[in-house]
Amino acid sequence: MAVTPGPSPSYSVVLRVEFPSVPGFLGRIMTVIGKTGAKIDSVDIVSLKSGRRTRDICVYCASPEHADIVVKKTSAIPRLKVVDVSDRTFMLHKGGKIEVTSRISMDNRDALAMVYTPGVARVSEAIHADREKVYSLTMKGRTVAIVTDGTAVLGLGDIGPEAGLPVMEGKAMLFKAFGNVDAFPICLATKKVDEIVAIVKAIAPGFGGINLEDISAPRCFEIEERLIKELDIPVFHDDQHGTAVVVFAALTNALKIVGKDMRKMHIVINGIGAAGMATTRLLMECGCSHIIGCDTAGAIYEGRKENMNPTKEWFAQHTNPRRLSGSLRQVLKGADVFLGVSGPNLLKRRDIRTMGKNPIVFALANPTPEILPEEAGKYARIMATGRSDYPNQINNVLCFPGLFRGALDCGATKITLKMKLAAAQAIAGMVPAAEMNEEYIIPSVFNDLVAPVVSGAVARAAREEGVIRPNWRNTTALLGRSRER
Amino acid sequence: MAVTPGPSPSYSVVLRVEFPSVPGFLGRIMTVIGKTGAKIDSVDIVSLKSGRRTRDICVYCASPEHADIVVKKTSAIPRLKVVDVSDRTFMLHKGGKIEVTSRISMDNRDALAMVYTPGVARVSEAIHADREKVYSLTMKGRTVAIVTDGTAVLGLGDIGPEAGLPVMEGKAMLFKAFGNVDAFPICLATKKVDEIVAIVKAIAPGFGGINLEDISAPRCFEIEERLIKELDIPVFHDDQHGTAVVVFAALTNALKIVGKDMRKMHIVINGIGAAGMATTRLLMECGCSHIIGCDTAGAIYEGRKENMNPTKEWFAQHTNPRRLSGSLRQVLKGADVFLGVSGPNLLKRRDIRTMGKNPIVFALANPTPEILPEEAGKYARIMATGRSDYPNQINNVLCFPGLFRGALDCGATKITLKMKLAAAQAIAGMVPAAEMNEEYIIPSVFNDLVAPVVSGAVARAAREEGVIRPNWRNTTALLGRSRER
Repeated sequence: MAVTPGPSPSYSVVLRVEFPSVPGFLGRIMTVIGKTGAKIDSVDIVSLKSGRRTRDICVYCASPEHADIVVKKTSAIPRLKVVDVSDRTFMLHKGGKIEVTSRISMDNRDALAMVYTPGVARVSEAIHADREKVYSLTMKGRTVAIVTDGTAVLGLGDIGPEAGLPVMEGKAMLFKAFGNVDAFPICLATKKVDEIVAIVKAIAPGFGGINLEDISAPRCFEIEERLIKELDIPVFHDDQHGTAVVVFAALTNALKIVGKDMRKMHIVINGIGAAGMATTRLLMECGCSHIIGCDTAGAIYEGRKENMNPTKEWFAQHTNPRRLSGSLRQVLKGADVFLGVSGPNLLKRRDIRTMGKNPIVFALANPTPEILPEEAGKYARIMATGRSDYPNQINNVLCFPGLFRGALDCGATKITLKMKLAAAQAIAGMVPAAEMNEEYIIPSVFNDLVAPVVSGAVARAAREEGVIRPNWRNTTALLGRSRER
Repeated sequence: MAVTPGPSPSYSVVLRVEFPSVPGFLGRIMTVIGKTGAKIDSVDIVSLKSGRRTRDICVYCASPEHADIVVKKTSAIPRLKVVDVSDRTFMLHKGGKIEVTSRISMDNRDALAMVYTPGVARVSEAIHADREKVYSLTMKGRTVAIVTDGTAVLGLGDIGPEAGLPVMEGKAMLFKAFGNVDAFPICLATKKVDEIVAIVKAIAPGFGGINLEDISAPRCFEIEERLIKELDIPVFHDDQHGTAVVVFAALTNALKIVGKDMRKMHIVINGIGAAGMATTRLLMECGCSHIIGCDTAGAIYEGRKENMNPTKEWFAQHTNPRRLSGSLRQVLKGADVFLGVSGPNLLKRRDIRTMGKNPIVFALANPTPEILPEEAGKYARIMATGRSDYPNQINNVLCFPGLFRGALDCGATKITLKMKLAAAQAIAGMVPAAEMNEEYIIPSVFNDLVAPVVSGAVARAAREEGVIRPNWRNTTALLGRSRER
């Protein structure tokens, strides 16, 4: 049986149970639940009448199946009635997670006459006369579109734009909470590259940046490339570069712990999608030359014939200098770093044991990693996943809120390599050298300092490179008392 | 010289002035400002040092030119220094007026693991398995896109999508404030009908409704028609139907005051754009037959050759049964109702005097009406404008928030004629018969009861007509304790 992760709030249920007012009865229920391996988070009183008690018991489970077992075992307790079962995650998502609110109180006619007609007409005229004023007089300079076509949502694949929406809403929450960036989901009912490019270009007037999200490879590469070329606002495919930046930051620190040099690393990357491609490119820009990319057919090498495409041809040409062939497991032997951006449960403990000394394992498939930390055990010297319920979470939220905040603040017209490296260095630098260890190579996503530091570093890099709007004036500075006509 | 409107907060400036600490000096400043015809709203102390006082004086003016005069006259006061002048309307718009916020607190790992990965994956899977669940588990069921191409913004014409954005933001504020509808501006950088239709269809997965806004005629007719046909969510061009509904409501009450019958009215409509077309159609559906449409070339009649297009052909075929020709002024003679949805300052007092007995004048051009109430004077028995700074404001905000709220609540798939009439009757009914008079034919936009009443009426009409999603379950009802998988 595969090792499963422990109980987590992601799979928590609330059981409403009614049982006799008998001393020790609640303890018995908790024992039954505890024996399934679930964790009781809280117990609340609902009512107490005519010798019966009703309580809500919130239980963390390890999976939906586990939750079913908890319900079944609890229901089997004599004289107890399970009144209702609710799934906390679903309850949290009901009705959506974000809303569009006003920044200005509008409770009287005066305010209405200024924010809407007739007052707004002068603001519109001012922008019509000088289009750059759209940055200071509207939401544009604060707002990012999160654009998806729902073709590569988390690890779930092509589940469609509607099913992608809860993820994009979550992303918008993260943008706001961590970077004070206003982000809005745009879920597209088309998968055609030309149409997606045309649509994003058409909606761009209202946005200060475009965050492409969960668009499958290789379409994502062309879409991003064309939009960067054709738009004058930052376009950033987070699955590619957000992952690459955070992986780079974590790897920087991991290598300090094991005392190895990045340029000499032997790195095996499994999954030649958006994240794999961008991470490989970023690593190569920084001098890594021993990278082997793998897909389901194994290592990609120059001369491989089966199952190729333009992305894989690029890999064949630019990576794997020794032209190693074979399965993922075969080429993993002796490697210093495994980077998984692929699918669930692909590796076993024995595979990690064949890696080089002090192996670094980044198993980033979501929601289930290539190998769980419980399975890898002590054989991985340093282990990271994409999940929030394990140490060393490689989470893009460390990058995108601060990166976009910085880009918006300085009026950046694009996100360059230097800006990405500045973000990675800023993130890596947030782990104090004295505290760094195998389970702390990357700052917590709840470290409030990360986004401001990333933002500052990114804005500085953009200014140094000169990729900012001409005559850019910071919106905040404009909030002073100058008169605009 | 044309009659201009009085001082209004839409044209207010804040003067920061420094002057000697001398008794009576402030009074002198206020006299100088008052003599220009401006209205002083407030005076605040900024500082008091070394015999000089600094104060902020907020002044309502009648126009930007008027504000210039105020500044000039104030600056001319001896020993006074105007330190700074700021335009309150522009200050209010700085940085935009709406933001995207979270409905859920996300200040710990547990919440993060539920709203984002890994918890969100199950929510996405549930929607993938049953797409209708997107209504209960995401923001879709609460959210409307405000779509414009910036071609007919207020009365300003084709000023482009960026210049339209402040208006769309204001609209989103109104949606939220009055209907608790989450609305988001989509400003399109294309004017092509096919492209607009394709884009709106493509972004529809994330929205529960589409509010088309400020798209010029006749393109707006085709765009709306095609979208209504091709989408399963409500599509509503507010400039057409929102105006028609509120005009219809106001006219219903105005006719009660003058004791006339709607079906016998002689109505002249100037401006055959979106609002003119939709209002004409709604009035005809309700039995009005004496309608004459006018454009810049005058009355439209069957057989007119010059300056025609398909919309005007429709008018020629369906209105003006007596085939009257001539200028607007000529056909206005003897009419009961003038409805202007055109441009500024087209009529004079003498034109109103030629109308029939107890004329009703709805001069709705924004921001400057076809004729100002000051100009019409007593000759119009009942006068309404689109402005918030005069009585009887024909403001779409009386309709669209409640209308969309009702449509979203009942899972409506479209907005039908019956739903629009239900909204109009609900709005008209909000003016109590006992209080109705020439200056009170339509409820205040700040009457909090309007939107709920409109919403209920619209939802009821939709349910009666059966234009709702099959198996629709109210999201709020779903917030109960059932378990979803």
